[in-house]
Formats: sequence, C-alpha cells, structure tokens
Amino acid sequence: MSDDPRLAPLAASLPATVPFTGPEALERLRGRPFRARLGANESVFGPSPKAIAAMEAAAREIWKYGDSASHDLRHALAAHHGVAPENIVVGAGIDGLLGSTVRLFLAPGEVAVSSLGSYPTFDFHVSGHGGRAEKVPFRDDREDPEALLGKAEEVGAKLIYLSNPDNPMGSWHSGAEVARMVARVPEGALLILDEAYVEFAPDGTAAEVDVEDPKVLRFRTFSKAHGMAGARVGYALGPRHMIRVFEKVRDHFGMSRTSQSGALAALQDELWLTHVRGEVAAARERIAAIAAENGLGALPSATNFVTVDCGGDGALAKAVLEELAARDIFVRMPFAAPQNRCIRITAGRPEEMDLLATLLPEALAAARARG
Amino acid sequence: MSDDPRLAPLAASLPATVPFTGPEALERLRGRPFRARLGANESVFGPSPKAIAAMEAAAREIWKYGDSASHDLRHALAAHHGVAPENIVVGAGIDGLLGSTVRLFLAPGEVAVSSLGSYPTFDFHVSGHGGRAEKVPFRDDREDPEALLGKAEEVGAKLIYLSNPDNPMGSWHSGAEVARMVARVPEGALLILDEAYVEFAPDGTAAEVDVEDPKVLRFRTFSKAHGMAGARVGYALGPRHMIRVFEKVRDHFGMSRTSQSGALAALQDELWLTHVRGEVAAARERIAAIAAENGLGALPSATNFVTVDCGGDGALAKAVLEELAARDIFVRMPFAAPQNRCIRITAGRPEEMDLLATLLPEALAAARARG
Repeated sequence: MSDDPRLAPLAASLPATVPFTGPEALERLRGRPFRARLGANESVFGPSPKAIAAMEAAAREIWKYGDSASHDLRHALAAHHGVAPENIVVGAGIDGLLGSTVRLFLAPGEVAVSSLGSYPTFDFHVSGHGGRAEKVPFRDDREDPEALLGKAEEVGAKLIYLSNPDNPMGSWHSGAEVARMVARVPEGALLILDEAYVEFAPDGTAAEVDVEDPKVLRFRTFSKAHGMAGARVGYALGPRHMIRVFEKVRDHFGMSRTSQSGALAALQDELWLTHVRGEVAAARERIAAIAAENGLGALPSATNFVTVDCGGDGALAKAVLEELAARDIFVRMPFAAPQNRCIRITAGRPEEMDLLATLLPEALAAARARG
Repeated sequence: MSDDPRLAPLAASLPATVPFTGPEALERLRGRPFRARLGANESVFGPSPKAIAAMEAAAREIWKYGDSASHDLRHALAAHHGVAPENIVVGAGIDGLLGSTVRLFLAPGEVAVSSLGSYPTFDFHVSGHGGRAEKVPFRDDREDPEALLGKAEEVGAKLIYLSNPDNPMGSWHSGAEVARMVARVPEGALLILDEAYVEFAPDGTAAEVDVEDPKVLRFRTFSKAHGMAGARVGYALGPRHMIRVFEKVRDHFGMSRTSQSGALAALQDELWLTHVRGEVAAARERIAAIAAENGLGALPSATNFVTVDCGGDGALAKAVLEELAARDIFVRMPFAAPQNRCIRITAGRPEEMDLLATLLPEALAAARARG
C-alpha cells in the first residue's frame, strides 16, 4: 500500500514506524495479559492518593477545557524549583515537549547528537522534522558527555540530547558534571537535558545550572516518580526567552483538565514521593539480589529500573526477555550493542519481585538452552 | 525581548500568538470568575455519568501509560460508524489532529483555503508549518463551498477546510451538499471536514461520503456533545492509506488513559447523548426567545451555541460582549466582518439562561449608550 501522492515530501520520506510497542499492544499480540508489567518504567506504586482524589474531582468538571496556560500548576512548579513561572512550559509529557523543541530549534537538514541506544522518541522527532541524527556510543555503560560534545563540535550540531539519569542503563552523572558539560556546549548548540528519572537519583544529580542559562533546556515529568504516566504531564525548564517561544507552536488547549489537577496535587504530596522513593530503592535492591542469585550482574541505578547484565550477547538477552514474556513477565532491553547484553527491569511491588525471583531461573535456563 | 538566534527560521518567523484566550485566562485578567461560562461552546450539561465513573476508575490506573493504539476506543468507534478500525486515528482532540494533518499534507509554502473568520486553530497550524492561508468570505452567514472550491482551484490549494455545522455561525449544509462538494475537490487537494458539532445537527447533516474516499478526512470530537472538552479526545475518519500515515508523526503515547476510558464509556451511553441533545435544543430556543425579547435576531443553529445578531456593527457587538463580561457572563463573538455584528452564546442550563435573560437588557442598553 503506497503513500498518498498528496503527502508533503518530508512526510512521504518518513517510515510509518512506532518508537516502541506498548504493553497493551504486546498483550494483544500474545493473546494474554502480563502478570508483571515491569517493562515500561511506570511506577507500579501509583500516584499519590491525593492526586487520585484530585483527578476524580476534576472528572466532574471535564466538560470544561483545561486552563490553556496551566497557570496553577506552572506557578506551583515555579515555587517548587525556585524559578519564575515564565521559566516553565507545561506540555503533554516530555514526549510532546521534545517534539515541540525539535520543531522550534532544528531546521530540516540540521543535526542532533545523541547516544547510540538512547531514548528512541527523541530520534523519532528529529527525523520527523527533517533533522539528521548523529550518534556516539555509551562509555562504560554511561552516556559520554565528552563524546557528545566532541561530535556536536565536529558536525556543527544544533541539539545535543542527554538523559540524566539515563534510560536504558540507569546510570548517571552528578549535577556538577552536567553543569561542566553545559558550560562547554558549543556556540549555536542547545543541550536537551532529559531528567525524567532524576527524582529517583542520589542528591546532587539534578543539573546545577542557572535556569536562565541559554545553553540548556531541562525536561521533567509526572510519568515516573509521580506515578502518572497515563496522565501526560511534563514540563520544560529554561530561560524565559526560550520558554516563551513554545507559545508559537504548542497545542494551547491540549492539556487534560484531570491531568492538570492530578499533577498539582501530586507535586504537593512530598510524603508520597518519599514513600515511592523508598519502595523503589527496596525494589532495586531486590532486583540486584535476584540477579546475583542467578549469577548475573546488576548495574547501579539512579532510576526506577535496574539493568541486568545477562552475561552474554544481544541474542542471549533477547532470549531471556522472550522467555520471561512467555512466563507473563514484561521487561525490555537496550537497543544497541554492547548494552543489548542486558535486560531492563522496572521496580515492582514485592509480589511482582517474587514472581521474578521464581521465574527468572527458568527463563534463564530456557534462554541458555536455545543457544 | 528578541527570539533566540538558534531558532529554526520557520519558528523564528512565527508570532508568539495564541489562537484564542481561554476562560480561566480571562478570569485572571478580570480578577474574578464568570457566573455563566457560555463562550467556549463546552457542554455545561457534562459528560455521561458512566464516563465520569470510567474516568474515576481509570484514575487509579493512571500509573500506566495509555494504550498507544487506543485499541478499544478505536474499535468501538469503528463499530459505531460502520467502518474498519484502520479508518480511524484517535488523537488529543481535533486541535492536535489538525496539527498532524497539516504537517503531513501541507509542505512549507503550500496553500490552505478556509473561510474568513472560521476556526483560528486551523490557521495557527497552517502558518505554524510554513503554509499559506487563503480566505474566502462567508455567504449569507454560511461557509461557501462554491467559493472554497473556486479559490482552491485558483491558487492550487493542497488543503480546504470546512466546518459543518460551522463555528462561529452555527449554520450548516446538508450531508448531501457536502458530498457534492467532496466530489468536486480539485485533483491534488484534500478536504478537511471538521464535524465537531455534528451530533447537535439535524439528521442528514453528517457528510454522506464513503470513508475510503481519498478526497476528504472527517474530524470528530468528544469535546462537544459528549461533554469532555477537558479530556482531549478527537478522531479522524478517512481512507486506510491516509489514516496510516498519522503513525509517522503522531505522539504514540500521548493519549491520557482516563480520557480513553471516559470516551469509550461516553460513546456507549446513547441515552445520555439524547438527553444532552434535548437540553441543548431547549437552550437554543431559550436563547432565541431572549434575543427576541430584546429585539435581536438569533440565527438558526445546528450546534450547541446560538449566534445572536446585535443589530449593529462589530463595535456594537464587542461592546455587548464586554458589557456581558462586566456582568460575569462569558460569551464570544465571530472574528470577521460582517459576522462580527453577532455574539455567540453557548447553550446553558436553565439558571444560566435565566441570568442571561436578566442581564442582557442591561448589557445591551449599556453597550448602546457607549456609542
């Protein structure tokens, strides 16, 4: 089936690919549900009960459009971060905001640099807007600021993408290291700093930069630590003159009213965040222990997932993933070698961790038997 | 404050405008809330109680991303319309889908034709993607298919936008007339048919076209008759090969999980839709009666709003709107002459209609006294 002849040339050039397949789509392909949903780095511990209550209350007001300025949420975020409301734009998740950012700052034919195997949705937007993606490898299972800066300089990149902590490895750099990287961003380039997982990271991991620094836009989300992936709320932090330009392209009435209310309530429930951080820390230790019981190594993690080295090549890790799926456990794996020797397991509740402990030995044995 | 020098040239060329200011933003400017929110064509009658219950239930599952394929909703919509699921793409409201459509089908420099004073968000997307907007006037307070087709032929337009029933006048063409227009869409062009209000229209208003007709994409929403504007759920109906291309650019995990659940429940509650239609019909009659009591004409409406002719020029209508706002009644008015002689009043509950009946005479008198 060929494309429509009326498609714009850029659109015609794009493949009809999906950055990755969602858990429900996988369940439909399999013909049965997963028992443990540990592959999408969602927070199985859920959102704050206060956020749920706020969303329930807002459901009765859903006949109203959401506030086009996300005023209350933006002001609360500004107070939380100690910046001005004009330093913040709220959007439908980091995914949506990354799309707007690429559209605003990357003209067709220009180059964005990121790490081989990093978040595929960023590349989806780069190619989707006619940009070119240049890649550098991870170094010691971490994103490599030196290599990113070097490549950006070499190719005259407009955008540099770094996730910190990073997905899919769970590794991280200190906020001070990131600040040193920001200072070295080449003239004419902009660092896209994705801090989706930073609430799970050790103190000092958030970038130590001035919000008015024009070399960097930072991205945060309610999808991870706040347990609201299905609500689609993210935000970008940056200099006023750069945040302001999002008004040129954003979907002004695109925010769900329930999501705005839920995020505001979630932000104010610090106790719940502390509770979730504790549960995630315990689950990370449990995953590492399960890995060790099976003779596998677990990478240190500053996120709500642990990347487990299956001790072989990509084919073995893929087999382990498939054998876990055959036992109704959903996990994912990094895309690019040599990180694709690993599988990535989201922090789960004790009962899901028990299931993993029970079934990983079988899955490993079956995967090894395939070879 | 000048733009950042790193902005892409197209982005740099765009004004930082908002298609229109939302009610909450107006309330913040005024410093006090409206008592009657009758300006955004929301359904004050709310969504189906079953939709509210579904959203409340889904709030507890909000830690999960929404289904990236909106599978259940898309299949239910397909059954509802008697088409295949592959004929439907679900997105975050018609606004978001219009943005994707323009991005897919209008290359920079190409032309989109629409009516002077029609839905501003379409033009926002056209200019936002580097297209050029060409306009034709309304004819007898209705969109003018002949003029739209003629202009499209003359300028070699790629896109033609028609809303039916139309916003802001509430007027309409029969589905058979629209089908005749579709048949005459010039080779190489595509009709964007916005049917946001069609559930309020007389039987036979929905376009009588084959869903596989490659000359037209139709757009529907849960924001109006289904009372879920704040949930951001819309969909496009069209040929499989054209619906498929949305996969190239859409935000795959961009749908709110609560909104997906709410829309599915709303779609299945036909009784509620019938109830809302009845309330809206009664409110339309009430608005027309209030207009008549004040010596004003009300236009026939196939929507959930009534456009009232203030009997003067744009300045008078603007004064009436301002005097209503000063009395805490929020309405809007059409943007372009000669339609800007009118104000547009959303169907309200009896208490809001009573407020309008009480305050319109004062507002009119005050507006006339200004001149």
